[in-house]
Amino acid sequence: MNILIIGAAGMVGRKLTAALLQRGTMRGEAITSMTLVDIVAPDVLEGSSIPVAALAADISRPEAAQELIVTRPDVVFHLAAIVSGEAELDFEKGYAINLDGTRYLYEAIRQASSGGAYCPRLVFTSSIAVFGAPFPDKISDEFFETPRTSYGTQKAICELLLADYSRRGFLDGVGIRLPTICIRPGRPNKAASGFFSSILREPLVGKEAVLPVEESARHWHASPRAAVSFLLHAAEMDTAVLGNRRNLNMPGLSATVGEQIEALRRVAGERAVALIRREPDPMIIDMVEGWPKNFDASRAEALGFAAETSFDEIIQIHIEDELGGDLPQ
Amino acid sequence: MNILIIGAAGMVGRKLTAALLQRGTMRGEAITSMTLVDIVAPDVLEGSSIPVAALAADISRPEAAQELIVTRPDVVFHLAAIVSGEAELDFEKGYAINLDGTRYLYEAIRQASSGGAYCPRLVFTSSIAVFGAPFPDKISDEFFETPRTSYGTQKAICELLLADYSRRGFLDGVGIRLPTICIRPGRPNKAASGFFSSILREPLVGKEAVLPVEESARHWHASPRAAVSFLLHAAEMDTAVLGNRRNLNMPGLSATVGEQIEALRRVAGERAVALIRREPDPMIIDMVEGWPKNFDASRAEALGFAAETSFDEIIQIHIEDELGGDLPQ
Repeated sequence: MNILIIGAAGMVGRKLTAALLQRGTMRGEAITSMTLVDIVAPDVLEGSSIPVAALAADISRPEAAQELIVTRPDVVFHLAAIVSGEAELDFEKGYAINLDGTRYLYEAIRQASSGGAYCPRLVFTSSIAVFGAPFPDKISDEFFETPRTSYGTQKAICELLLADYSRRGFLDGVGIRLPTICIRPGRPNKAASGFFSSILREPLVGKEAVLPVEESARHWHASPRAAVSFLLHAAEMDTAVLGNRRNLNMPGLSATVGEQIEALRRVAGERAVALIRREPDPMIIDMVEGWPKNFDASRAEALGFAAETSFDEIIQIHIEDELGGDLPQ
Repeated sequence: MNILIIGAAGMVGRKLTAALLQRGTMRGEAITSMTLVDIVAPDVLEGSSIPVAALAADISRPEAAQELIVTRPDVVFHLAAIVSGEAELDFEKGYAINLDGTRYLYEAIRQASSGGAYCPRLVFTSSIAVFGAPFPDKISDEFFETPRTSYGTQKAICELLLADYSRRGFLDGVGIRLPTICIRPGRPNKAASGFFSSILREPLVGKEAVLPVEESARHWHASPRAAVSFLLHAAEMDTAVLGNRRNLNMPGLSATVGEQIEALRRVAGERAVALIRREPDPMIIDMVEGWPKNFDASRAEALGFAAETSFDEIIQIHIEDELGGDLPQ
């Protein structure tokens, strides 16, 4: 079992790599080699018994994907993308990487397919950004895609291509629309959605965090651990049941900021909650208003995908996976 | 008012050209020039007072669109595509013309846009092939796109690009999903949907026609005249009301083959109906089963698009527009 991870240096990519190395198997077979790719070569953990190669590649070059496919990976995780804000600022770069880069990958696999002799599982990370307001209370599995960003447009197009290349037998694709990942580890960043994580992550370690929206703001969340479980399940599931509908809303937790804060209070006490500073930001309030708030992800749930059911659980996962299992005293 | 029609040699393109030449105006302004483009140069009607240029162009060449945009047309009708069957047989050609050709056109306009100084109305003909079975009884304006052909995939992608390029202010796009055009004039062709037209068109002139499906088969129709009216309205409508949802299900008439035949009986009598020969074809029965049967096109209707409400009317339009107003005795 030979596995290729494109976009392996990102937060989810690193956690996915660690999970695969720990399991050592995929679809009941031993993992015999892994290739980690990103725009800069990803770090390789020492001491793994599985051979791991790390490569730097610019997927917006047509030849890059051909080179990555030479070893005929059995499973390809395609996580690479430039983020929403950058794709909005740099129209050409967004299309070059998020659309053309993905299409070159599909094409390289098609050209290697030799009439179906080679047909790898391809797990593609899409995004809830494929949807654009106005929304129903819950976005169903059959709601239409009218993205309001170039990033969302690029993801929606790659979903369509994934389904067509799968239907034609060139690859065996599963597209998963990830919820916002919470609690995202690391430092505060400038992403407009960053506060959903930072209002929990920072107070948990005694630091201040800024809340730019009202407590009534609702959003759709899943933990990094859930994201990795989605990717692994998408790689292992039986795709015959998907028919031609290869792209799935992932399960998640719909919660208001107020509910996030109540969970923080239960887990870490009043002292942590007091570290949240309210600084309403009209621009962020407006952006968040346009984002999906809730989904009916019945189809993915029926197919065995599962996410957290409370924010207490999401916070607990962060404490276990990022803080060594205990809150600092 | 300078108008460019790409795909002008096709049946709808020719009727659109004739309608524009007859009107002489568009959006309240005199049409001062028209350019007709297709893979072979379209015929130009003699005697028009409007200068009409006819060009041959292969839109799968990146430079082709740049050359077509040099005169900065105010309205672009993009009707060019290779059909469903051919796009399914020739994967690369389908993507090269239906996807890349359209994207080159959008890109040429973007590169000419000079920060919004040039922003033409672009009317794109999409298709109900963007939808894939299973369907609800009526396909709503918010139903998701899961095409079951490469052609439908290519159209769905061009819709997404049209919306994004419009949102960014590079062009002012309207995408219209045409019903099956009925009664399509001309000779019987090999399209699987051809019988919907031929079972009316041939008996109206005393010829036999073959019906390969059951009378209970239901489908979604509009006349060639309605198709031209959709294109003209899409070129003239106020697009501010569309928001980011630039692609519309066009109105149509949902009818069974039995209802088509009853209309034929009312308009042309039993003698015409007797010319329909039933030859069930399992492959066509199966294909038609997977096609959309009915739509709720409320949004387009509210925006002023209108189609026929009976098959009697559709047949009458064929008699007026193709048979000189009378049935042959």
